[in-house]
Amino acid sequence: MLELYWGSGSPFAWRVMLALEIKKIPYASRLIEFSKKQHRTPEFLAMNPRGKVPVIRDGDFVLSESLAILAYLDRKVPEPPLFGRTAAETGRVWRSVSETISYLEPAADDIVDPIFSGKAVEAAEAITAALPHLHEELQRIEEQLDRSPWLAGDAISAADLVAYPAIETLLRAAGKDAARALDLRLLPLEQHYRRLADWRGRIAALPGYERTYPPHWRAALRPAQTDSVS
Amino acid sequence: MLELYWGSGSPFAWRVMLALEIKKIPYASRLIEFSKKQHRTPEFLAMNPRGKVPVIRDGDFVLSESLAILAYLDRKVPEPPLFGRTAAETGRVWRSVSETISYLEPAADDIVDPIFSGKAVEAAEAITAALPHLHEELQRIEEQLDRSPWLAGDAISAADLVAYPAIETLLRAAGKDAARALDLRLLPLEQHYRRLADWRGRIAALPGYERTYPPHWRAALRPAQTDSVS
Repeated sequence: MLELYWGSGSPFAWRVMLALEIKKIPYASRLIEFSKKQHRTPEFLAMNPRGKVPVIRDGDFVLSESLAILAYLDRKVPEPPLFGRTAAETGRVWRSVSETISYLEPAADDIVDPIFSGKAVEAAEAITAALPHLHEELQRIEEQLDRSPWLAGDAISAADLVAYPAIETLLRAAGKDAARALDLRLLPLEQHYRRLADWRGRIAALPGYERTYPPHWRAALRPAQTDSVS
Repeated sequence: MLELYWGSGSPFAWRVMLALEIKKIPYASRLIEFSKKQHRTPEFLAMNPRGKVPVIRDGDFVLSESLAILAYLDRKVPEPPLFGRTAAETGRVWRSVSETISYLEPAADDIVDPIFSGKAVEAAEAITAALPHLHEELQRIEEQLDRSPWLAGDAISAADLVAYPAIETLLRAAGKDAARALDLRLLPLEQHYRRLADWRGRIAALPGYERTYPPHWRAALRPAQTDSVS
C-alpha cells in the first residue's frame, strides 16, 4: 500500500491528502511530528534530504514535492483527472496552480508568517503594506469562481487542491487573537468573498475531507485545550 | 500558427522557446519589448492581465505562465515527452521542476537581482550570505548530473528546460564587471561544476537552440556595443 508521510497543518501535505481522497487511493498514514524532530531522522532524510513533507513511498518508488506527487498520482490513477482531459484544460489547471504558488502564496505568507511566529505587532506595518497584493489575488480567484464552480473550470482539479490549503492557512491566521487588531478584511469570509466562501464549502463537503483535516487544528477548536501556534 | 509572445532574456519565455524547438512546433515569434512598454498595451493585458511573458495564442486559446504552457504543449504534441512516459518519470520530472522553482531560483535571485540592478556593492554582504544556499542547490544538480545525463533521467525533459535559463541568467550575472569583486565561485563553470558545464553544452547543441538565445545577450557580445544591464 502507498505510504504518505505528512505533517499536521502542512499545506503541502494537505494537497496530496485531498488528491488521495478524490482518487480513492488507499494509503497508509505516516504522521511526521516536527516537534519530535521526526523529519530529521536518518530514515526520513534518506527519503527526502530536505526534511520536508509530503513524501510518498509506493513500493520502491519514493517521491517528494507536492506538485510532483500530484502529477505522479494523476498518471498512476487517471480518474478523475486532476490535470484536465484536454490540452486546454491541462493548460488552465497548471496556469491556476502557477498563479497560486507564484503570486497568492507569497502574498499570503507575508501576512501569515508574522502572525504564526508571534510577530504580528512588530510586523503590523509590513502586513498592512502586503494586504493590497493579497486582496488582488483573492479578487482574481473570486472572479474566477464567479465564472466556474472550480478554479480551472467545471470539475475539481489540482488547481483547487493546491489553493485550498493556502486559503485555509490564511483564514486560520486571520482568526488568531494577534490578527484581530489588524484590519485584514478577511473575516467573516462570506462578507468579503462570497464565491470563495461557497467554494470552501464545496471542498469541505468532499467525501473523505474529514480525514484530511489537520488534527491539531481540530484539537485547538475544543475550548478546554490550549490553542496551538499554527 | 501558434503565436509566442516573449521577451529577450526572460528565463520564463526561454523555457517555452526550448520546448517549441524540441517538439519541432512551428510558431510565429512576437517579441515584446519591455523598454517600449509593449507588455502594458491593452492588447497584451487582455491576454495576460499580469503583463508578463511568455504568453501563447493557439487559435482562440490564450495561455500564460511558463509551466502551464509547457504542460499544454506536451499534451498537444506528446512527442518527445517533456514530462516522462511513466508515472515515476512524471514524478521525477516535476520533482526537479519544483526544486528549481522553489529552491534554486530564489537562491539565485538573491545574487542575480542586486547585480543586474546595479547594487552589487551595497548588497555584497547579503550576496555572500546567500551563496552557500546557492552552492548547495548547484551541488545537488551536479550530483544528479553525475548519475544521469539530464536532470530527470536519460532523456531531456521539462526539468532541464526549466533549470537551464535560470543557470544561464546566473552565469551571465556572474560575468558582469560588478560581480568580479565578489567571490561567487561560479566562473569558469567547468572548474567548479564539471557535470553542469557538460550539461550546458548538451543543451546549447540542441537543434534550434540558436533561435532561442536572447538576442540582446548576443548583441552584448559584440565588443563595439555597449553592454546592457541584464
